[in-house]
Amino acid sequence: MDLIEAMRTTGACREFTPEPVDDASLWRLLDAARFAPSGGNRQPWRVVVIRDPDRRQAIAELYGLGWREYWAHVERGLVPFAPGSDGTWRGPAVDLEAARERPAPDTFGEGLAHVPVMLVLLAHLGSLAVTDNGLDRQSIVGGASVYPFGQNLLLAARNEGLGGVLTTVLTRQEPAVRELLGFPASFAVAGLVALGHPVRQVRKLRRGPVEAFAFVDRFEGVPFSA
Amino acid sequence: MDLIEAMRTTGACREFTPEPVDDASLWRLLDAARFAPSGGNRQPWRVVVIRDPDRRQAIAELYGLGWREYWAHVERGLVPFAPGSDGTWRGPAVDLEAARERPAPDTFGEGLAHVPVMLVLLAHLGSLAVTDNGLDRQSIVGGASVYPFGQNLLLAARNEGLGGVLTTVLTRQEPAVRELLGFPASFAVAGLVALGHPVRQVRKLRRGPVEAFAFVDRFEGVPFSA
Repeated sequence: MDLIEAMRTTGACREFTPEPVDDASLWRLLDAARFAPSGGNRQPWRVVVIRDPDRRQAIAELYGLGWREYWAHVERGLVPFAPGSDGTWRGPAVDLEAARERPAPDTFGEGLAHVPVMLVLLAHLGSLAVTDNGLDRQSIVGGASVYPFGQNLLLAARNEGLGGVLTTVLTRQEPAVRELLGFPASFAVAGLVALGHPVRQVRKLRRGPVEAFAFVDRFEGVPFSA
Repeated sequence: MDLIEAMRTTGACREFTPEPVDDASLWRLLDAARFAPSGGNRQPWRVVVIRDPDRRQAIAELYGLGWREYWAHVERGLVPFAPGSDGTWRGPAVDLEAARERPAPDTFGEGLAHVPVMLVLLAHLGSLAVTDNGLDRQSIVGGASVYPFGQNLLLAARNEGLGGVLTTVLTRQEPAVRELLGFPASFAVAGLVALGHPVRQVRKLRRGPVEAFAFVDRFEGVPFSA
């Protein structure tokens, strides 16, 4: 498949047909994704393919807890989050205990135990960049060595006629996921990836134009144009 | 260009010929990269194309400070970092002030002011995931909404016959970069991207096989195979 065509049509896909994904197809996309760049070429990603029905159910339930916490923030108008303010997950603005008990609209989560492919994406913490360590804000640079791999996965899935999504909602329940999958404290849950044959293949994604995000020489200066 | 061929041959490239990159080419790759997924489709990325020679020189010097700090850790065998230990940038194991003054091998940094394309990639903090907020480790999930865009940029560059690299070393000097480029505290430096015509196009990247990182149902259990 053409690279640019794949990029332009790889949107988040959360609804799949019941058609299974064969292992050969999954292997090919993992085999393509592994060429992603990473700091020092340390390739910190690990993938756990969740097949056991009980484990799938457990992951789906853990995902649901995180989703309901998220939804409580959405309902209160707290998303997008204000960095450093009370609008973050551990801030006092939302009663997380109560949120986890309350129903929230979650079509994706309800079907999650039965998605054709469920992957848990892990990252080796010691291999990640720590260059924003000590800055007065949330660290983000560690993701630079694992989410390019995730994007490769989604693009390669598109090439196989599959759709999918990478979500970080499961990360909220990392200690329980660690116990379930048996990984050490030196690894983090970078995300959950669901893949399958899409109910609808999106042809046109909603995105802002280049001029809205690219500027010359200073932030929000002259928009970049060709 | 074929998607899988592009993925398999997009390695980090840090040496460029003097040939310039035309604006039409840069625009096309920004136009392809913008289709990356992001949490809530909030598209938190901003790109500043650095053209002004003085600003380029300033960025290159700020990069050099971070590189020398990094190199001091490498010399002491502290990379990869041990999460939570003294081996992190702000730990006491390395005298950062002294490190910044000492020379370090840095071919890339020495040529940085003159790379054909210099981009600073910013991310809007309030738009990023905070799902690992409160866990006892470095946060990484914020990167999930910006580094897929970075990977798209590098893949699209490959499609234009260009090579490049995304580095997080510049992030160390975020306060100075903020002052230079005029962006508010609600934005973070996600990385520096350098692009150009590669001196050598790598055809075969060194990466571990699928069986080394993908497992079924539990961490380091049965390797996944097709």
